[in-house]
Amino acid sequence: MKDVAARAGVGLKTVSRVVNGEPGVTPDTVRRVQESIDALGFRRNDSARVLRKGRTASIGLVLEDLADPFYGPMSRAVEEAARAHGALLIHGSSAEEPDREQELVLALCARRVDGLVIVPASDDHRYLEPEIAAGVATVFVDRPAGRIDADVVLSDSFSGARDGVAHLIAHGHRRIGFIGDRPRIHTATERLRGYRTAMAEAGLRVDDSWVALGSTEPERVRATACAMLDGAGQPPVTALFCGNNRVTVTVVRVLNGRVRPVALVGFDDFELADLLSPGVTVIAQDAAQLGRTASERLFRRLDGASDAPSHFLLPTRLIPRGSGELPPPADAL
Amino acid sequence: MKDVAARAGVGLKTVSRVVNGEPGVTPDTVRRVQESIDALGFRRNDSARVLRKGRTASIGLVLEDLADPFYGPMSRAVEEAARAHGALLIHGSSAEEPDREQELVLALCARRVDGLVIVPASDDHRYLEPEIAAGVATVFVDRPAGRIDADVVLSDSFSGARDGVAHLIAHGHRRIGFIGDRPRIHTATERLRGYRTAMAEAGLRVDDSWVALGSTEPERVRATACAMLDGAGQPPVTALFCGNNRVTVTVVRVLNGRVRPVALVGFDDFELADLLSPGVTVIAQDAAQLGRTASERLFRRLDGASDAPSHFLLPTRLIPRGSGELPPPADAL
Repeated sequence: MKDVAARAGVGLKTVSRVVNGEPGVTPDTVRRVQESIDALGFRRNDSARVLRKGRTASIGLVLEDLADPFYGPMSRAVEEAARAHGALLIHGSSAEEPDREQELVLALCARRVDGLVIVPASDDHRYLEPEIAAGVATVFVDRPAGRIDADVVLSDSFSGARDGVAHLIAHGHRRIGFIGDRPRIHTATERLRGYRTAMAEAGLRVDDSWVALGSTEPERVRATACAMLDGAGQPPVTALFCGNNRVTVTVVRVLNGRVRPVALVGFDDFELADLLSPGVTVIAQDAAQLGRTASERLFRRLDGASDAPSHFLLPTRLIPRGSGELPPPADAL
Repeated sequence: MKDVAARAGVGLKTVSRVVNGEPGVTPDTVRRVQESIDALGFRRNDSARVLRKGRTASIGLVLEDLADPFYGPMSRAVEEAARAHGALLIHGSSAEEPDREQELVLALCARRVDGLVIVPASDDHRYLEPEIAAGVATVFVDRPAGRIDADVVLSDSFSGARDGVAHLIAHGHRRIGFIGDRPRIHTATERLRGYRTAMAEAGLRVDDSWVALGSTEPERVRATACAMLDGAGQPPVTALFCGNNRVTVTVVRVLNGRVRPVALVGFDDFELADLLSPGVTVIAQDAAQLGRTASERLFRRLDGASDAPSHFLLPTRLIPRGSGELPPPADAL
């Protein structure tokens, strides 16, 4: 507020009058104060007060992909929490682009959302510091915040992937492929770390050709899976671990067209996974619980909680359904 | 603008000064004009100008259910169009409640979105008339606007359902059940009308117990499907037509647990439908094309098009995959 006053060349009292809409300020001064506010990103820290006063509060939810069904239950959980608190929920999608995330988040702040739940595409959130300082409650979910300290709610991607790969190893597999999302995505690298740890714990070598991070576009996943299954000079893999549901549904299609059975475990559960032949074994996240935990944290902040940021790590769960229990072919051992 | 001036007890020139942020107006007058603006819902018709001036425009997309995968490709198409026009997309969900829709739409307008794409939950949109008059471009998609004249983009639910039911009849079925969404939803009643028309065109009787509109909650759909399949005093149906993808995935689960094959056609395609056993025959909508057509219309309006509202009706497509080609059991004829 002092910075605003200094920049506008007025006293603190004048800034206060403008901000609170009180009379006794000339239009020219109002304009100078408002330009100063705009330039400095100053806002009243009134989120909690707004909620108490009964004005409809609004929460922004920033996802990375609207069409990924993983986010359906999470979004719905955030929405239910918002409704229970009488708040409106407004969403946006970053399309997995850091610039887009920043543009969207700041646009929501400019439209005076009281809080934000963010699935980040960016790995640097320092651009949010003025907003957080100005009172916008902010919780990151599914992926951590980058270069700022903030509330974060994650699934335990590392342990989940390690469990899934250990499950394939326990069913006799030695050559296991890992197909994951792009390497700048935190969940992708954590799941790869789980894969490598499970392989190392079993004393198994990992060939470079068995690991592929990249786009989850069907064409890329299909080509990658076929290369791993056909060997390309190496002995082929007998099992695949898929880094998320977008990868898994494409790999299910690839395997459906092949004669030799290939074992499969996918990270994320998905609709109808149990009705396929074989049923698809998955590492399930509790997407709704991610949304609920993030929302609880957010509304605690909006109610005035000012304790240090917390990190929550939610457990995953292996659901065996058939595909992950297929043994390797006898001639592949 | 005249109404604003009259209500505030000032001249037109003064209103113009306040709206354009010009000096020479006392704070008290500014406040009275602004209160008058708020009360009357007046806004400058500056959408097109804003787009031309290069400020980031924003589009609101109001859906009924975030977690319904049908809306994934539609949302993504609207988002791509928004990006191509340099506009931000902000979403919200009505959770299928008319009051929630109105609250959300007006909240987006209050945050000065330039345009709206709405999948309506309400059947009365007169509340939007002041916003539309004030220049908020508005297009309805998937369901029509209620009691106002506006641009509307729909799939041909009636013809699609008629085609799907005729397909079952062509494969020998005479007793066909229809399970659809709630009767106040336009697509639900249009699809029921298609069912009734196909049955009538084939000279087939429709028993009251074969038709059920209601919630798409799995419990309701499961109980309804079981009652139709077990007859409850009537001869049981030998085929089911499902009114949308939420109904279909539950019916697939019901049929999976039964010994006698039952034919099935669902409205809406869904992920993995082709990999089930049997593959699920569907009436596919082009959800992405719905989104694209609505967006094109919206951005034409934002570019200044002022022709009369148009209604677009997009065709559906029958995709035979096995479940809709199953004949009735020999002893059921």
